[in-house]
Amino acid sequence: MENLKIEKESAALLVIDPYNDFISEGGKLWDRLKAVAEANHCVPHMLQVLNAARKAGLRVFYALHHRYRPGDFETWKYIAPIQKAAWSRKTFEHGTWGGEIRSEFAPQPGEIVAQEHWCSSGFANTDLDLLLKRHGISKLIVIGLLAHTCVESTVRFAAELGYEATVVKDATASYTEEQMHATLVTNLPNYANAIVTADEVVGALSSLKALGTSA
Amino acid sequence: MENLKIEKESAALLVIDPYNDFISEGGKLWDRLKAVAEANHCVPHMLQVLNAARKAGLRVFYALHHRYRPGDFETWKYIAPIQKAAWSRKTFEHGTWGGEIRSEFAPQPGEIVAQEHWCSSGFANTDLDLLLKRHGISKLIVIGLLAHTCVESTVRFAAELGYEATVVKDATASYTEEQMHATLVTNLPNYANAIVTADEVVGALSSLKALGTSA
Amino acid sequence: MENLKIEKESAALLVIDPYNDFISEGGKLWDRLKAVAEANHCVPHMLQVLNAARKAGLRVFYALHHRYRPGDFETWKYIAPIQKAAWSRKTFEHGTWGGEIRSEFAPQPGEIVAQEHWCSSGFANTDLDLLLKRHGISKLIVIGLLAHTCVESTVRFAAELGYEATVVKDATASYTEEQMHATLVTNLPNYANAIVTADEVVGALSSLKALGTSA
Amino acid sequence: MENLKIEKESAALLVIDPYNDFISEGGKLWDRLKAVAEANHCVPHMLQVLNAARKAGLRVFYALHHRYRPGDFETWKYIAPIQKAAWSRKTFEHGTWGGEIRSEFAPQPGEIVAQEHWCSSGFANTDLDLLLKRHGISKLIVIGLLAHTCVESTVRFAAELGYEATVVKDATASYTEEQMHATLVTNLPNYANAIVTADEVVGALSSLKALGTSA
Repeated sequence: MENLKIEKESAALLVIDPYNDFISEGGKLWDRLKAVAEANHCVPHMLQVLNAARKAGLRVFYALHHRYRPGDFETWKYIAPIQKAAWSRKTFEHGTWGGEIRSEFAPQPGEIVAQEHWCSSGFANTDLDLLLKRHGISKLIVIGLLAHTCVESTVRFAAELGYEATVVKDATASYTEEQMHATLVTNLPNYANAIVTADEVVGALSSLKALGTSA
Repeated sequence: MENLKIEKESAALLVIDPYNDFISEGGKLWDRLKAVAEANHCVPHMLQVLNAARKAGLRVFYALHHRYRPGDFETWKYIAPIQKAAWSRKTFEHGTWGGEIRSEFAPQPGEIVAQEHWCSSGFANTDLDLLLKRHGISKLIVIGLLAHTCVESTVRFAAELGYEATVVKDATASYTEEQMHATLVTNLPNYANAIVTADEVVGALSSLKALGTSA
Repeated sequence: MENLKIEKESAALLVIDPYNDFISEGGKLWDRLKAVAEANHCVPHMLQVLNAARKAGLRVFYALHHRYRPGDFETWKYIAPIQKAAWSRKTFEHGTWGGEIRSEFAPQPGEIVAQEHWCSSGFANTDLDLLLKRHGISKLIVIGLLAHTCVESTVRFAAELGYEATVVKDATASYTEEQMHATLVTNLPNYANAIVTADEVVGALSSLKALGTSA
Repeated sequence: MENLKIEKESAALLVIDPYNDFISEGGKLWDRLKAVAEANHCVPHMLQVLNAARKAGLRVFYALHHRYRPGDFETWKYIAPIQKAAWSRKTFEHGTWGGEIRSEFAPQPGEIVAQEHWCSSGFANTDLDLLLKRHGISKLIVIGLLAHTCVESTVRFAAELGYEATVVKDATASYTEEQMHATLVTNLPNYANAIVTADEVVGALSSLKALGTSA
């Protein structure tokens, strides 16, 4: 995709849920993800894109799933199935290693961490939309987990709220190839303005840097 | 699913995009939908559910896609792919037959029509959430089109915003069985509290009526 | 305020509720507004600002209050006092002269009319935020009615959602000077980035035009 | 107001910003608030209402202002005046006594703390709306600070989003009586369904308890 252009003033990288529970050996969900994530080199690609964005001076945002805390959900009258599952597994438990961001992905000073989201969309019930606007961002490059839940919901919301989204297809993963297909082939072409590879994004970010654009 | 219970005070039927362009012979998109919609008897099922809801006195809401009007999108700097497609086809053109609700599905007095949505979620940038709250509704029974775009986005948003959603799987359709599968099998079990048949809903609505519950 | 600068690419004029019922002789609410509106020349100032914006090629948006239609509110379980009042008066009745935009303020081709709002904020339950984003707008110049209800709520929402707002203090009106004071002196200095006169805005728009900036 | 009725299943107490910086001797803003707050016995009234709500088994929610953290706002392109002021004062600084909730108001197990809000509305860019819906709440009794900023914005948003709000006029305070008047007399009668005294709320909560209603 030779045409991928990234405008530094209006674009940002959005990193979704790079928790140990998802993408580190020993994480609660890593075993379910592993086959798909290793097949497309998801984690190394996520890291390459993040590093390239940092080198190019692109603004980096984090959309993080709610970390489980004692008492969560106990008083709710209504709950979605995906929340019930997270509750029973205590996924991303606050204060535990699994609920920490994998170390290479830890936010650096000047990077923006939105409030934790309760379900799948990084935008729903959080300050992500506000923080993007306060930084003049209208275009998102999206990496992270899971493709068919948080990534797809965040990109659907992005389109609804007026953002352009580029999804990096080999810097995301799901539990099954069927889930990857549902998101990347069946659904997101309707909502993402581009679906690209990590190589393409790294290439575009490098030429951005070469051009010497400064913030 | 013998357990489907409908609470009349807090539940409503949500009908998504019953436009002629989608579900009437001669509509702009009917030919693309037809095979899937006829295979599961989508339109007759939609009608059975709507009629049963009306008989039972269940509140009925409509989430309707933006009808194309001249000038739309022309000044936009950013646009989602699905909007570009709707623009080029002039789908649901305002003032034309295709942009009218198929006659059997026309809203009746006391039924609530939310503002038109620009993309896929009936909640995004509309008054649907407000109108549901103003009527005390926290649970939705969802029918209509298309499964993998408006229905899936609306149900994903419903879960994010705190609603319980029941999806009627044979009262919805998409262009392909793959799209139906992506939505009904792969994705929505995470967000819908139940995925049921029209028969099950009609049954539950009938027993509701038999119980003589009144609003 | 010699420093008022308007950036054509990112700024827009937002016109709130220029209905006959508010600002035309014979309108349902004009008699209540008249003393305040004539004291600060509200309507002529609104028109001067609108015309200057049009000449300068500034993008113009409209935030319009819900027009009363038969059946409205009848089924609501909950209603705000301001809505109850609008209901009893049938303010801005759809299909009547009072519910029409005063003729000099009628939207022109290329100007953007957001969905009608049910209460006071032009942003709440409408597509205004989406449409602003889709046009790359992050700064609003606000004129219209009423100062202490729709204007104040819209500006409070603008600040919450990440927009910069400039309020034109003599292109707005309320029923009483006390209401004007509450909004323009007591409250909005917290949320509006500038509170200026129509003359200042017209001046800034004229220099914008003189500079020959083009969209 | 003999008619104040509180429905335990659908009503909740909403406590806004009971930080030491606001309502404790030695807090950064207490000296500015003190005259108004002592004149209406704001803090004792807040405590009486909170205690009565707890005794009656009413659900309690907290809407808390963003606590200042190093780095905040530094990268923002746009900022509202009220945020600039909070930034310069480092109000509610995270990790300091001023940014802690005054001890008598500390949330107890089962009470719900929404995400911190960046500006004035407890609803904007937070999960407050979601959490209220997840608990079946449609009516709010509002106490806390400041009347003309966070309380007024939260109540304006509540009305826009479909909630009924009751404001306790002697369990809130501002810096000046003029600000109190703007909010309690001029503006909020449009958006709050009732404006009452702490005594009236405590009375209504006591009879609720006497009735032995259980959750």
